[in-house]
Amino acid sequence: MVERFDAVDIIRTKRDRQVLSEDQIRWVIDAYTRGVVAEEQMSALAMAIFLNGMTGEEITTWTQAMIDSGETMDFSSLTKRTSDKHSTGGVGDKITLPLAPLVASYGVAVPQLSGRGLGHTGGTLDKLEAIPGWRAHLSNDEIMEQLESIGAVICAAGSGLAPADKKLYALRDITSTVEAIPLIASSIMSKKIAEGTDSLVLDVKVGSGAFMKDIDQARELAHTMVRIGQSAGTATVALLTDMSVPLGRKIGNALEVEESVEVLAGGGPADVVELTVALAREMLVLAGVDVDPAENLANGRAMDVWRDMIRAQDGDPDAPLPVSKHTETVVAESNGVVSAMDAYKVGVASWRLGAGRARKEDPVQAGAGITIHAHIGEQVKAGDPILTLHTDDEERFERAKEALDGGISLSNVASTRQSVLLDRIG
Amino acid sequence: MVERFDAVDIIRTKRDRQVLSEDQIRWVIDAYTRGVVAEEQMSALAMAIFLNGMTGEEITTWTQAMIDSGETMDFSSLTKRTSDKHSTGGVGDKITLPLAPLVASYGVAVPQLSGRGLGHTGGTLDKLEAIPGWRAHLSNDEIMEQLESIGAVICAAGSGLAPADKKLYALRDITSTVEAIPLIASSIMSKKIAEGTDSLVLDVKVGSGAFMKDIDQARELAHTMVRIGQSAGTATVALLTDMSVPLGRKIGNALEVEESVEVLAGGGPADVVELTVALAREMLVLAGVDVDPAENLANGRAMDVWRDMIRAQDGDPDAPLPVSKHTETVVAESNGVVSAMDAYKVGVASWRLGAGRARKEDPVQAGAGITIHAHIGEQVKAGDPILTLHTDDEERFERAKEALDGGISLSNVASTRQSVLLDRIG
Repeated sequence: MVERFDAVDIIRTKRDRQVLSEDQIRWVIDAYTRGVVAEEQMSALAMAIFLNGMTGEEITTWTQAMIDSGETMDFSSLTKRTSDKHSTGGVGDKITLPLAPLVASYGVAVPQLSGRGLGHTGGTLDKLEAIPGWRAHLSNDEIMEQLESIGAVICAAGSGLAPADKKLYALRDITSTVEAIPLIASSIMSKKIAEGTDSLVLDVKVGSGAFMKDIDQARELAHTMVRIGQSAGTATVALLTDMSVPLGRKIGNALEVEESVEVLAGGGPADVVELTVALAREMLVLAGVDVDPAENLANGRAMDVWRDMIRAQDGDPDAPLPVSKHTETVVAESNGVVSAMDAYKVGVASWRLGAGRARKEDPVQAGAGITIHAHIGEQVKAGDPILTLHTDDEERFERAKEALDGGISLSNVASTRQSVLLDRIG
Repeated sequence: MVERFDAVDIIRTKRDRQVLSEDQIRWVIDAYTRGVVAEEQMSALAMAIFLNGMTGEEITTWTQAMIDSGETMDFSSLTKRTSDKHSTGGVGDKITLPLAPLVASYGVAVPQLSGRGLGHTGGTLDKLEAIPGWRAHLSNDEIMEQLESIGAVICAAGSGLAPADKKLYALRDITSTVEAIPLIASSIMSKKIAEGTDSLVLDVKVGSGAFMKDIDQARELAHTMVRIGQSAGTATVALLTDMSVPLGRKIGNALEVEESVEVLAGGGPADVVELTVALAREMLVLAGVDVDPAENLANGRAMDVWRDMIRAQDGDPDAPLPVSKHTETVVAESNGVVSAMDAYKVGVASWRLGAGRARKEDPVQAGAGITIHAHIGEQVKAGDPILTLHTDDEERFERAKEALDGGISLSNVASTRQSVLLDRIG
C-alpha cells in the first residue's frame, strides 16, 4: 500500500506551528493505529501538539479520526433516549453509582461504560467489584437488553472503541504529554462519542485532587469538549465542580459503594447529593425530561433501579460489603475547625492504603480507603478522630500517613464550605 | 538497579521550559544508551528541546554525556599534534580530500574519521571508494601507525564513538527533530571530541545546498559549536562558507576525486583552492604552524602525501577512475551569463543520477554525477554546454533533469561570484 502522507512532514507541520489539514490528521491517526506511524513519531507529534496547540477544527477532526479508528456503538434501536456522564476524575468521586440508577428511574437509558483507576483517583469498576458477585464485562447484547429493561448499565468499555486513543493514551503517559487540553479533550470525547450516546454531561473537576488545578484551564477544557460534542451531534453540557477537598466522607472501593447506597436511600453527605442531583438534572433535561431528580432519591425509586442493575450483573445488593482487616485513626492535635483537607493528599493516602493501583495489572483492596469524620468547616476538639484509615496490610499505614503530611489543617476561625458547583458550560 | 531519575520528569522539565541539571542530562543520555529510556521518550524530549531550546551549559553537558556514552580515541602517544576538520555538508564538497594531505605535509597529523552520504550531499568515504582498491575500515592500530608515518588518515569512524549520538541521530531523522541547533551542535561535537583531536576547524555551510539556509542560524550554530569545543579543551575555530552554488565544477564520487587531484597538482577551480587553503591555514595555526599552505599545493608535497595515504589504505593512486556508462549534456537556451546555479537542485540531480543514496543500505555509483561547464558568473552562447550529467542508468536522466528545473538561470547582466568565505568565528 502506498501511503498518502509522510509522518515526518506531518510532525514538521505541527512543529512549525502550522495547522494540520483534515487529510493529514485522518491519515496520521489511521496509520498510527495500523502501526505504520511509529510510536516515536507519534510521541514527537504529541509533544509538538502539547507545545504548539491545535485549533478547534483540528481538535474536532482529531477526535473524529480516533472514533473512526474503531467500532462505535448504536443505541438507536432502544425505545428510550440515552444520556451519559463523564467525570475527569477526583478523590471520593463515586457519583456514577447513584447517578446512573437515578437518571434511569425517569425512563432515560444510561450506558455508563467505565474504566479502572490508575494513580490517586479510583475507578468506577473497581468500586462496583467490591460488591460480591458483580461482573464488569457484558456483551453488547447484554448491554442493550439491560438498558431496555432496567435502564442503567455500568460496565467495562469494549476494547474495540477508539483503539487509536488507547495506544495514544499509553504513549502520553510515558512521554509527559498527558496534560494538553487538545489531547485530553479528544481522548475523552472520542471514547464517549464512540459509545453512541444521544447526550452527554461532563463533570470537569478543578482543584488539587483533579487533573486541572486551575479554573481557567478547566473552563478551557470544558469549552473544548462541549464544542467537540456539539460538532459530532452529541448534545453536551459541562459542569465545573470543586475537587480541592474529597467528595463525600468515604474514599475507597467498598467504602464508596456504601456511601452511594446511603445517597440512594435518601441520605448521604450534602456535597455528594448536591452533585448527583445537579448532574441528573442536566442529563434529564438533555433527554427531554423536566423533573426534580431529588424526588426519586427520597421515594426509593432510584434505589430500586440500583438493586435491579446490580442483580442484572450478578451482584448481590444485600450482601455485606468487604471490610479491611486493619484500621487506624488520625486524631486532632488541638481544638479548632478543619480549614484544609487536601484532596490530592487524601487521594494518595487512600491509594497507598491499597484502594488504588500503580500499574494496570495490580490488584486493588476492596476494603481499603479512608473515612472522614471531620470534614472541611467542621469543629473538632483535641483527640477527636478526623480520619480513619483502612487497609489489609498494616505496614501501609506509615506511607499513607506520610502522604497526608501537611494536607489537613485546623484553624481558630469558623469557615463554611462553598458549593461543589463552580460553573456550567453548554 | 534503581534508577536515579525518571524520564517522564525529565521530559516534563524541558517541556515546561526549565533548565535540565547536569545530573538529569547525564542520567538520561546514559539510560537512553542502555535502553532504559525508551525511543518514544527520547523522541518527546528531542521535540521539547527543539521547541524550547537549551542553554549553553545544557548543550555542553549534553555533548559531554554523549561522548561519555562510548569510547574515546587518544592521540597523545603520537609525536605530532593533531588537527581535524568537520564540514556540515554541501554539494561538491570534496575539500577533505586535498585538505588532509595538505595539512599533513606540514608535519601535523590529520585523523579524518568520516561517514557516508545520505540525501543530496555526498559522503567522503563514498568518494574515496571510487579509487580502485581503497579501503575505508582501519583498525585503531592502523590509524595510529598511518598518522605517525604519513600524517593523514581518512577512514570510517569506529562504531564505539558516541553511541548515544548514533541512536539519537537515527531517531531525529524520523521524528522531524533534525534542524535544532542544540541537537546538531552536540551531535557533531560529541563525535569530533570523542575522536580526540587537539584542535578542530569547522566548515559551517550556508545556502540552499546546506543544512542552514540562513546566515544568522549558521552563525549561531558555529558559535555554539566553538563554545562546546572550547569547554571540552579542544581548540576550535569555525568558518562560515557559501553553499548557495556547488563547490567546484565536479559533483559525484569519482568526479570529486578527480577534481581533488587537480587541486593537489596545483590546479583546480579557484573556489575549491581558496577554501582548501583557508581551512588548512586555520588547522595549521591551531597546531602551531605558521606557513602559507598554498606552497605545498604548488610544489607537489601535498600530492606526495595524498599518494602515500591512498596506497597505505590499499588504493592505487595511478589507476584510472571509474567513468559512467552514459552522459547527457544540458545546454544554454540563449546567450547570457549564468546568474543562478542552485546548489540544492544540482545536489538532488546528482543524487538521482546515482551518486548518492536514499537509504543507508543502498549502493552508490562511482561514476555518477555532474560536471559544470559554465559556472555562476560565466558567459555562454545559446547551445553551449552548461552541465554534463553522468550515470550508469539512462532512465535516471529524466528525474535528474526534473530536479534541475528552475535551478539554473541566465541573465544579460555581467556578475562576479563572491568569495566562498563569509565569516570566521573562534
